[in-house]
Amino acid sequence: MAANERHGSATPITAHKSMANAIRALAMDAVEKANSGHPGLPLGAADVATVLFSRFLKFDPAAPKWADRDRFVLSAGHGSMLLYALLYLTGYSSVTLDEIKRFRQLGSKTPGHPENFVTEGIETTTGPLGQGLATAVGMAIAERHLAAEFGGIVDHKTYVLASDGDLMEGISQEAIALAGHLKLSKLIVLFDDNGISIDGALSLSDSVDQVKRFEAAGWASWRIDGHDPEAIAAALEKAQSADRPVMIACKTTIGYGAPNKAGKSSSHGSPLGADEIKGTRAALGWDYPPFEIPADILSAWRIAGSRSQGVHAAWQKQLAAVEPAKRVEFERRMKGDLPLEALAAAMRALKESLVATPKNIASRSASEYALEFLVPAVPEMVGGSADLTGSNNTRTKSMKAISAADFSGRFIHYGIREHGMAAAMNGMTLHGGIIPYSGTFLVFSDYARPAIRLAALMGERVIHVMTHDSIGLGEDGPTHQPVEHLAALRAIPNLLVFRPADAVETAECWELALKSKDRPSVLALTRQNLPQLRDRLDEENVCARGAYEIAGPDGAAQVSIFATGSEVSIAVDGAKLLAAKGVAARVVSVPSFELFAEQPEDVRRAIIGTAPVKIGVEAAVRMGWDAIIGSDGIFVGMTTFGASAPYKELYQKFGITAEGIAEAALSKLR
Amino acid sequence: MAANERHGSATPITAHKSMANAIRALAMDAVEKANSGHPGLPLGAADVATVLFSRFLKFDPAAPKWADRDRFVLSAGHGSMLLYALLYLTGYSSVTLDEIKRFRQLGSKTPGHPENFVTEGIETTTGPLGQGLATAVGMAIAERHLAAEFGGIVDHKTYVLASDGDLMEGISQEAIALAGHLKLSKLIVLFDDNGISIDGALSLSDSVDQVKRFEAAGWASWRIDGHDPEAIAAALEKAQSADRPVMIACKTTIGYGAPNKAGKSSSHGSPLGADEIKGTRAALGWDYPPFEIPADILSAWRIAGSRSQGVHAAWQKQLAAVEPAKRVEFERRMKGDLPLEALAAAMRALKESLVATPKNIASRSASEYALEFLVPAVPEMVGGSADLTGSNNTRTKSMKAISAADFSGRFIHYGIREHGMAAAMNGMTLHGGIIPYSGTFLVFSDYARPAIRLAALMGERVIHVMTHDSIGLGEDGPTHQPVEHLAALRAIPNLLVFRPADAVETAECWELALKSKDRPSVLALTRQNLPQLRDRLDEENVCARGAYEIAGPDGAAQVSIFATGSEVSIAVDGAKLLAAKGVAARVVSVPSFELFAEQPEDVRRAIIGTAPVKIGVEAAVRMGWDAIIGSDGIFVGMTTFGASAPYKELYQKFGITAEGIAEAALSKLR
Repeated sequence: MAANERHGSATPITAHKSMANAIRALAMDAVEKANSGHPGLPLGAADVATVLFSRFLKFDPAAPKWADRDRFVLSAGHGSMLLYALLYLTGYSSVTLDEIKRFRQLGSKTPGHPENFVTEGIETTTGPLGQGLATAVGMAIAERHLAAEFGGIVDHKTYVLASDGDLMEGISQEAIALAGHLKLSKLIVLFDDNGISIDGALSLSDSVDQVKRFEAAGWASWRIDGHDPEAIAAALEKAQSADRPVMIACKTTIGYGAPNKAGKSSSHGSPLGADEIKGTRAALGWDYPPFEIPADILSAWRIAGSRSQGVHAAWQKQLAAVEPAKRVEFERRMKGDLPLEALAAAMRALKESLVATPKNIASRSASEYALEFLVPAVPEMVGGSADLTGSNNTRTKSMKAISAADFSGRFIHYGIREHGMAAAMNGMTLHGGIIPYSGTFLVFSDYARPAIRLAALMGERVIHVMTHDSIGLGEDGPTHQPVEHLAALRAIPNLLVFRPADAVETAECWELALKSKDRPSVLALTRQNLPQLRDRLDEENVCARGAYEIAGPDGAAQVSIFATGSEVSIAVDGAKLLAAKGVAARVVSVPSFELFAEQPEDVRRAIIGTAPVKIGVEAAVRMGWDAIIGSDGIFVGMTTFGASAPYKELYQKFGITAEGIAEAALSKLR
Repeated sequence: MAANERHGSATPITAHKSMANAIRALAMDAVEKANSGHPGLPLGAADVATVLFSRFLKFDPAAPKWADRDRFVLSAGHGSMLLYALLYLTGYSSVTLDEIKRFRQLGSKTPGHPENFVTEGIETTTGPLGQGLATAVGMAIAERHLAAEFGGIVDHKTYVLASDGDLMEGISQEAIALAGHLKLSKLIVLFDDNGISIDGALSLSDSVDQVKRFEAAGWASWRIDGHDPEAIAAALEKAQSADRPVMIACKTTIGYGAPNKAGKSSSHGSPLGADEIKGTRAALGWDYPPFEIPADILSAWRIAGSRSQGVHAAWQKQLAAVEPAKRVEFERRMKGDLPLEALAAAMRALKESLVATPKNIASRSASEYALEFLVPAVPEMVGGSADLTGSNNTRTKSMKAISAADFSGRFIHYGIREHGMAAAMNGMTLHGGIIPYSGTFLVFSDYARPAIRLAALMGERVIHVMTHDSIGLGEDGPTHQPVEHLAALRAIPNLLVFRPADAVETAECWELALKSKDRPSVLALTRQNLPQLRDRLDEENVCARGAYEIAGPDGAAQVSIFATGSEVSIAVDGAKLLAAKGVAARVVSVPSFELFAEQPEDVRRAIIGTAPVKIGVEAAVRMGWDAIIGSDGIFVGMTTFGASAPYKELYQKFGITAEGIAEAALSKLR
């Protein structure tokens, strides 16, 4: 469809002003009533948003999940009232006037920052600056990738409204560099260029020429007057046919209309106050009571909201005309349902293969081996790495890389951009149709942490392969050796952290991650080789229990040794040393603390067992382990940062050895 | 001194080649012997480094801590052998030929990545990409600030060698934007523009025009041939007199000289192998055995290393001529010694003031109140905020902001750049003469985490004020409410995390942070008001014990309630409810888990006490608490993300109330 068919004719200027002012009024009134919130952005960006939503954005409030809707991301999430006002005015059922009156109240659909898991019509949770922009890049990648596979039924834009703060955060550079490199021409960023930050004039802290910066990253970019509806419309029209991503710097006045606070940081993050609101009403010519939108203005907005219904209906026909198998596949993917039969067959073949020919390999290699089975079976898996492809082992032999010229590949070279990668993965999942997984070193989870947290908060299936997961990486030394990262990741609610002990556990953890539709996963994997401990075929996914006895004596145990990942085989050796000294010890592998914590209490107690001595073994800090071994349990692990040396010497140096485990147990039994 | 006095005449081209090849030979031989490491960068950047170290860098290997030396930061820390070769060749005693032969071995001075706490002559620990560049920005700020105060005895450059990876990481944007804004004209970045990353050609993942990008950030930037010594020298000469920071993109060939691997990613991160090394020797015309540097070449390097001795001697005279009080002050600051008397007096006045007029204020406000006493007493304190100045309360009334035009201020508007801020703070501490503290929201510690970790690893005194430390921030909602951050920060070795309960504890924690010369601190502070619980004057810094009884019954307690920060007063109220029901309960405030863990075991046991019921209270996840309350203790806190609502409603919703505590205790006693 040509762009002009969709965009229709221009809105009369008086109508535009009224429509924009409706946003402004709702925003300032809601913030005032809540006595908390950010009126500055909604007042400043109302013109831009009005032109976008009333003339360009392809959306259908009656069908918020329409697969081919344009995505709109309010990266500057603190301006949430802009979005709530738009959702209400255009007719989404999720945001009523009552909900707007309950802005920022417990249980409302209008929380302080936009939360996609609370309010239908919101594409992603924003607030932590830079995340929205970087997430949108992932949405735009998803659009191109799915279009390459499914053709014309996937053909939409991704729009972002971003603030100075979004562009100051480092993640924005990772995002725009990736978008520019991939020439994501259907990504359009509207920069709310108001020259104000919380501390005051932006010139207190920033002098970047943003247009030039975006151009340097391969974007088309130019400046406009962000209060001139025709200039906004012309820019958006021009952006429709760009051959690269577009950033339109819209010069706006924060707190537009407020007689004393407009253009000042005082309008940013606090209620305007009764007097200032009165003055704003007068300045805008908006003489209606709080929360009252005149019928003709609401009607104009509702008409704008229904503007794409025809396009939506046409798209439904287009979808219905797609060859059935392809259509079913598209719908399956967009729903996020797995191809369960194919996955089960792949898992069975994988486990049979491992039992038939055990593999004493690093768990990163075991992951690669697993992916060779899983990636063909689960076509929505799109892999990647932050420039550590050969180290993370995330690219299977058949995987073609995505490029600006060809988005049909299933592997993304994210570059050295862990944070942008993690946020883009969030965007792919949110877009739908893709299960993104990617790789970096576990220590660099710190770089990606704000985006991982958002995935957990949103409950999105994003899979992070994080290799080189301990001092076992050896010579690269303490800057690269995670010691606190397992604990720090386990501390995040709703995130699954897997640390498989061998190739079979790695396979099972991959299956669990794929099946966890409502939460992200981290797979912590080794650089160093590990023996395969599991040698018989388990129909069950044993790791689903979170912890299980992997080795044990015939009778009662005096010692229970709990370990994860690379330390499980060390624990098994420790148990053997103890057995040689007449001490019965069992070993419990704990591939996932979270899944174990979710077991029924009796199951948990049975797995923990009653041996008088409990030992935890992990080449990491103790934090979190007391939940398993008790605060009087023995912990064999790290208390400091690591060191640079061959890894076997490091395990010796830090006492994480079979001998160390046995000695610790014996000293307690003596 | 004019630039040309220092730089002397050009090195003859044959001498240059031999000197550069000496670096190359040591690098490839050391990596080969270690069978681990990164030869590509040292081979590629040897020409740039040789020109810098032999003709421009102001340094004295006999005095690695000379206060006015130029700083050199190898941001691309994986190329550590470049730095070790330079340190050896120029004559630092820390790196001998034997140490180079022990590259990446346990206990050597030549670990995998440069570690400033291991090897004298190394300015900062690098490896995690982007950190070095951002740290160098802090060094350059420190130079300007100290020059503004102490005049000509502070007058040096900060040089950075950065890689593609450094520039791809988002933190680089925060760093270059801040540097450009502040017009740090004595900061010179040499970009090792080799067009290769680990995955292969940079064009797989990046298309940024770096020169244009730096220009957009206010830098001077241009491209040169990074193997042409005169082009390098001319560029460095031009950079000496720039009026803004300079980025010189040096086009180099990674693995320069390697017949089959030069220009390829295969030379990046693995030993070249015996055959390739043989071929490289031939190509470079370097026919000396491994680790052997011919006497004339070593001599040329040693002469280069002693090149600044005269300048150093002149500087010593200049320092000696400084007015004594000023000189003593400069030397005190550069040593990192506190003005103990002034600090003690300020602390006494502060505590007396709080006891005289108790303050029921948020701990962020208590921190501001403390700073009004401390900042005048400790002139090396330089504050800041990531654009949350009014929310973090880190700026005292008298503090002037640093700007490009005037560096004499003591407050920095870092912009919305938490990561760049934290790294710059590391750089200020490393430079010496400054104790940086700064502010953001606790939830955004995630954005800064890689830099906070490096501060902990390096053992640097950097103080992070992190406000809005729980659901107590209220309406901004779960994106802004830390729940896992206290645990995640406590998991980092060598980091002090303080969570003071009232204004007096806030004062004491500030004192502890300032006195912790060898580790960074985080002060987690509330947005909401808190009652002042401590009403008598303690000479001792009670918080130094990490935990102490803040309220208790006369006799034995049946219940011990442990709490931190804003939850201490809730715990005190809980204890009162229990007392009303005839249950004796004591309350222990735990302002620092780390300091408490460091107490002697008997002290720890005495503070934990013997009450049969132990309860931990913190508006955060339980992780880490079992060390205090035991794995059978009761925890009143968070298990999920927070929500958007007025904070008192959130405390009710999540059951973190005096009633909840009392109920939990009673249910256990029943």
